[in-house]
Amino acid sequence: MLFQNKTFNVIRKDLDVLEGELIAAVSSHERLITDIGTHLVKSGGKRLRPALFLLAVHTGADFNREKAMPLATALELIHMASLVHDDVIDHADTRRGTPTANYKWGNQTAVLSGDYIFAKAFSLVAEEGYGDKVAAILAGLICDLSIGEIIQNREVYKASCDIPEYYERIARKTANFLAACCELGALVAGLEQRYIDALKTYGYDIGMAFQITDDLLDITSDKKTIGKPAGNDIHEGIVTLPVIRALETSPDSDELRTIVTNRDMTMDDVKRAIDIVKASDGIMMAKRKASEYIADAKAALPDDMSEKIANSYIRIADYIADRKS
Amino acid sequence: MLFQNKTFNVIRKDLDVLEGELIAAVSSHERLITDIGTHLVKSGGKRLRPALFLLAVHTGADFNREKAMPLATALELIHMASLVHDDVIDHADTRRGTPTANYKWGNQTAVLSGDYIFAKAFSLVAEEGYGDKVAAILAGLICDLSIGEIIQNREVYKASCDIPEYYERIARKTANFLAACCELGALVAGLEQRYIDALKTYGYDIGMAFQITDDLLDITSDKKTIGKPAGNDIHEGIVTLPVIRALETSPDSDELRTIVTNRDMTMDDVKRAIDIVKASDGIMMAKRKASEYIADAKAALPDDMSEKIANSYIRIADYIADRKS
Repeated sequence: MLFQNKTFNVIRKDLDVLEGELIAAVSSHERLITDIGTHLVKSGGKRLRPALFLLAVHTGADFNREKAMPLATALELIHMASLVHDDVIDHADTRRGTPTANYKWGNQTAVLSGDYIFAKAFSLVAEEGYGDKVAAILAGLICDLSIGEIIQNREVYKASCDIPEYYERIARKTANFLAACCELGALVAGLEQRYIDALKTYGYDIGMAFQITDDLLDITSDKKTIGKPAGNDIHEGIVTLPVIRALETSPDSDELRTIVTNRDMTMDDVKRAIDIVKASDGIMMAKRKASEYIADAKAALPDDMSEKIANSYIRIADYIADRKS
Repeated sequence: MLFQNKTFNVIRKDLDVLEGELIAAVSSHERLITDIGTHLVKSGGKRLRPALFLLAVHTGADFNREKAMPLATALELIHMASLVHDDVIDHADTRRGTPTANYKWGNQTAVLSGDYIFAKAFSLVAEEGYGDKVAAILAGLICDLSIGEIIQNREVYKASCDIPEYYERIARKTANFLAACCELGALVAGLEQRYIDALKTYGYDIGMAFQITDDLLDITSDKKTIGKPAGNDIHEGIVTLPVIRALETSPDSDELRTIVTNRDMTMDDVKRAIDIVKASDGIMMAKRKASEYIADAKAALPDDMSEKIANSYIRIADYIADRKS
């Protein structure tokens, strides 16, 4: 558990409070909403988005937990709602080892619960009164999330080797969201523009590294570690950086292309595709790219930041590139 | 076409401008978003929600179209996004005689486009800077919409005879949305609280009448008129006011209950159910209830409202109860 480390003492109490706020936010007089929301909150997650936001708020001089909490909650709710819709789209039965909302309550209720949770996030933010700029950033990040998923969805089983499009897709899916968390924290803390820009860049860079690492783990890890079978992306027709690289450089690229464009691929095909990618320089290239983003993220941190806060940012960055699940 | 009548000269130009604003709002550098959005806008609709909003803005002294338009656009976008998700949920192939987004682009892209359009609505509102109160009302109405659909979805094929629950469901699905359109218009126009409350009540009442009439048309109309086969609600297991009434008062209520609780009902079963409802006092009772709401709506209008504006409100109310499609 990343945030259990004592480097994160600065936000430990906030993250404890957050769990209660999340449960409160999904509690409704309509019991089905409460049941689904509570299930989602209790299914866990790293809480990376609110943690980044809270750390950015702590970067300012006068931390005010009451003021920060509704937006921290909203950021995790938006992430949660997007996962609920992703699971409907992917027909996923489990996430992080627990049953998905669509598996437990059906697609219809899952789509509607996702809509409810998105709207609830905006409710919390509007009621606290952060102003239109904060609301605009939140709305923009959901637009980005949806576009990222639409691009991904449009390209399945096409073995598209367009690396700039891969980066655009993961920026929209992940990096812009983490950038927004840092930016929002800096805004709420009233930091000067130089800090806002720096933290936004940091968030973007670790977001890119995070998604590249996620895509790598899909190939190099196993069901026990990541809660879904290895090669899940390949099976769903999604080609990620290591696969795109292997399609360009592997001597077996034709065979790889035949597999990843086949909607009826078997699990043996997936295993063979993984072997081809692992034998290529795709894994190494993606790892190097993730490391570059991590280095950029650290370099973006302002020199005059307090050591305590800077250490937390650096630790998060290191965790993101090194994580095994 | 309701708003072609000369009573609505006051908002005619606004509604013309709205069509362009809707197209602009769904235009994205991601072509799939533009294609889906344009298809949805061109599929038409009554534009009842922005019309109510705009009429309420005109109720004030100084109408400012530039200020009003982003919120008018956002209200129609929210309605549009909710229909996109409804069509995914109902597996609907057509709406108003044109193919649905899920039919043309698949469920996955339809869910994501709905998310995008919801978020785009919040973007427009935040960028114009209406403030947190407006954003809170918008977020609240999406929460209501989702809860209304979740309640409906939970109760399918149960022949639930709970009339208060029927009213709660249609309030959340429809009436609270129309109430919010009127309230938001009154807020943007800077009207005094007495006017805001009156217009909100008017919107709620016509919303209740609107949904009851919709539910009636599902039983009394035909595919040619309403663009879907009669008895569509019954077929999907949704019992509406005339059916609930017939379940209570018809001598054939046992037969009706057997049909409406059967997930495998045939189209002949649906026809028989319609005949039972038509032979009961269910239609008359629902019509009376809709008329009562229309009368309440008109009575809610402030006495000192300008005759021109009042006539538009009255004409909308009359249209809602009398409409045939």
